[in-house]
Amino acid sequence: IVTIGTELLLGFTVDTNSAHIGSTLATIGVRIARRTAVGDTAAEIRDAVDAALTRTGMVITTGGLGPTRDDISKHAIAELLGTPLEFNETVWLDLVARWQRLGRTIAESNRSQAMVPAGGTVLPNRWGTAPGLWLDGPRGVVILLPGVPVEMRNLLAHEVMPRLVARGAQGVIRSRMLRTAGIPESMLGEKLGDLEESFAPLSLAYLPDVAGVDLRLTAWNLAPGDADARLEAAASMLRARVGGWIYGEGDEDLAAVVLRELLEREEHLAVAESCTGGMVGARLTAIPGSSAAFRGGVVAYADGAKAMLLGVPPADIAKHGAVSSQVAEAMARGAADQLGADIAVAITGIAGPGGGSKEKPVGTVWFGFSCRGVVDSVRAIFPGTRDEIRARAVQAALLGVLRRARNETIPPGGTTI
Amino acid sequence: IVTIGTELLLGFTVDTNSAHIGSTLATIGVRIARRTAVGDTAAEIRDAVDAALTRTGMVITTGGLGPTRDDISKHAIAELLGTPLEFNETVWLDLVARWQRLGRTIAESNRSQAMVPAGGTVLPNRWGTAPGLWLDGPRGVVILLPGVPVEMRNLLAHEVMPRLVARGAQGVIRSRMLRTAGIPESMLGEKLGDLEESFAPLSLAYLPDVAGVDLRLTAWNLAPGDADARLEAAASMLRARVGGWIYGEGDEDLAAVVLRELLEREEHLAVAESCTGGMVGARLTAIPGSSAAFRGGVVAYADGAKAMLLGVPPADIAKHGAVSSQVAEAMARGAADQLGADIAVAITGIAGPGGGSKEKPVGTVWFGFSCRGVVDSVRAIFPGTRDEIRARAVQAALLGVLRRARNETIPPGGTTI
Repeated sequence: IVTIGTELLLGFTVDTNSAHIGSTLATIGVRIARRTAVGDTAAEIRDAVDAALTRTGMVITTGGLGPTRDDISKHAIAELLGTPLEFNETVWLDLVARWQRLGRTIAESNRSQAMVPAGGTVLPNRWGTAPGLWLDGPRGVVILLPGVPVEMRNLLAHEVMPRLVARGAQGVIRSRMLRTAGIPESMLGEKLGDLEESFAPLSLAYLPDVAGVDLRLTAWNLAPGDADARLEAAASMLRARVGGWIYGEGDEDLAAVVLRELLEREEHLAVAESCTGGMVGARLTAIPGSSAAFRGGVVAYADGAKAMLLGVPPADIAKHGAVSSQVAEAMARGAADQLGADIAVAITGIAGPGGGSKEKPVGTVWFGFSCRGVVDSVRAIFPGTRDEIRARAVQAALLGVLRRARNETIPPGGTTI
Repeated sequence: IVTIGTELLLGFTVDTNSAHIGSTLATIGVRIARRTAVGDTAAEIRDAVDAALTRTGMVITTGGLGPTRDDISKHAIAELLGTPLEFNETVWLDLVARWQRLGRTIAESNRSQAMVPAGGTVLPNRWGTAPGLWLDGPRGVVILLPGVPVEMRNLLAHEVMPRLVARGAQGVIRSRMLRTAGIPESMLGEKLGDLEESFAPLSLAYLPDVAGVDLRLTAWNLAPGDADARLEAAASMLRARVGGWIYGEGDEDLAAVVLRELLEREEHLAVAESCTGGMVGARLTAIPGSSAAFRGGVVAYADGAKAMLLGVPPADIAKHGAVSSQVAEAMARGAADQLGADIAVAITGIAGPGGGSKEKPVGTVWFGFSCRGVVDSVRAIFPGTRDEIRARAVQAALLGVLRRARNETIPPGGTTI
């Protein structure tokens, strides 16, 4: 991999593309031999791609394909390979059409984006303006991808991976990820520690973040059938031990699991958010089709909004404070009533950095639930920064909705939500 | 920089160390020529450090110094430099003391951890177990740092930076970033293209993402005073040309700029979100103290919610559709009224992937504004995925609020929000 961009060397940008390419290629058994980052200089780009081609005969570059002057990858690599650039009518018409759809006229400065090394394959970029390129020549393959992560990821998945698979990758690195929420890493370690030995040659990794702890099983360089069978057996053992905290697999989002559950039950959800300010709604509506189960909600940030929009009795706020069991329950009840929802969740807490007290330290969050007319509330105290506390609160709220929608009891040894 | 670790190539770990080293060294005018990541293999490490020494005569490596594994980096680099390893009494006594503090006795087998390349300087690591090393020889300097970010950062700050400054770093690399929204990269390029030459020796980079295009000016290896003066002059020229789209500097968030403007005017904001589902509220409330200017909002995802919570006439929805000028304006009016806000913004659109039509393709978003009683609406068509369309809509809504709060006119040549 050769990543191109002076901003990478100066440290203005953290390179997330390389890790994504590495883990994606590993799924088809392709290993990265080396990663090099160079600045936006033709000589540097030529030198790094030259060395990489000599080393492995196959190079992916990212960056340096946009319309402004600092984008020079295409020219530098065409020069290295001794290939002239040609104006490509199809690429140009794609660009013109794309701009037209947005009701704009394309600038002439974009014509350079339609220049393509002779004999190269254009990888159409539906997610941005600069197409990728696949150059296959006597020295090997050079694949040029844009540096914008969403464009790079889509081109890698839809254009590059199928071509690599077609070239015949062998022996696979496969992994399987089980996602947990509501249980700390240390507690998972206690429950699973003795299993790890028996998983060999698979490895088990604990990956904690604000959304919970992901458990990643990895099979290294096994035949595909063997890898899948071992991963399946190991995943079953994990589920038998800690299944009560596993909400999904792979990159499945807890919000998607909640929506699916509601859809199956033909029930509707409403939210009332204070300290999370709309984050639960944003998570749910990120999923296409969420409108079939998600009614909407109220961002009741100011105390007045809690009273006006949700009917929370001002006396409750005055007596117990906005961060209290009583207010959380009244918010949930109000959201369910106002939006005609079967289930509602309310969040009111102190995300910090200020506003904490001895009784209610920063990180204190009250959750209110109204599920088919039954109202309850739960308190949690989350560690971390304002961002982390808010993210943990969103995840806990979704977990609480899922458990109540399923009439599940809360397994002992984790959180109580 | 040579980063060492198979996990970096496999993509299990995102390399944040390189960006930190790059931006830290830039503050004293030291520029990174290249970054290379290699696996935990002696031959790969030797090869990469050899090439880097040839290139610049000064290399920082990270990783491969862990206490429980083979100290592969130390051995590989000592071999490359032709330097024997020697037992270092001070390192050994540090290890003994560290184990004693943990109530344990160190085994003699750990003596290899105290082996140091002859003539090397040990960089004591108070934040972990493996010390760093500074090796100065005929081919140049090799600095070995651990890969654990907190240890690497502390050793860099406390041991490496002072030594680099003492060697006489000259000139600084300084940069200044102006953030724009509401104007595409190519249009900025047309407006600014002829300026770029005159900025020399400063460089200008365009950094586009869903939040807009950032313009970064960088001064390379100039005296600090000269760098600042030139950056100031260039920033003024940029402001003169495209100031109408510049909302902030550095890492300033548009939501923070909006909140500051509202606070200064002692005005309050309310939001009504449909396709963004709470994202505007989430962005605003991510900022501590936002409650002083942000009242809250309504996530009116279902059509019923728009009528129930915001008083949008169901007849308007039936006649014009939920994504329309009429509904956007009614939502904004309703949010302002319900929450007693001076300014309200409403967002209703088609984020996709489904739901588009010929008249209203995916990406169509109507924004409604109610500002001190004056209501208007604007349509935009955004490119990209569901996530990108939503993110662009949030940014446009905030920009629209800022312009209206300031009574600014919309400059020609960008978006019309």
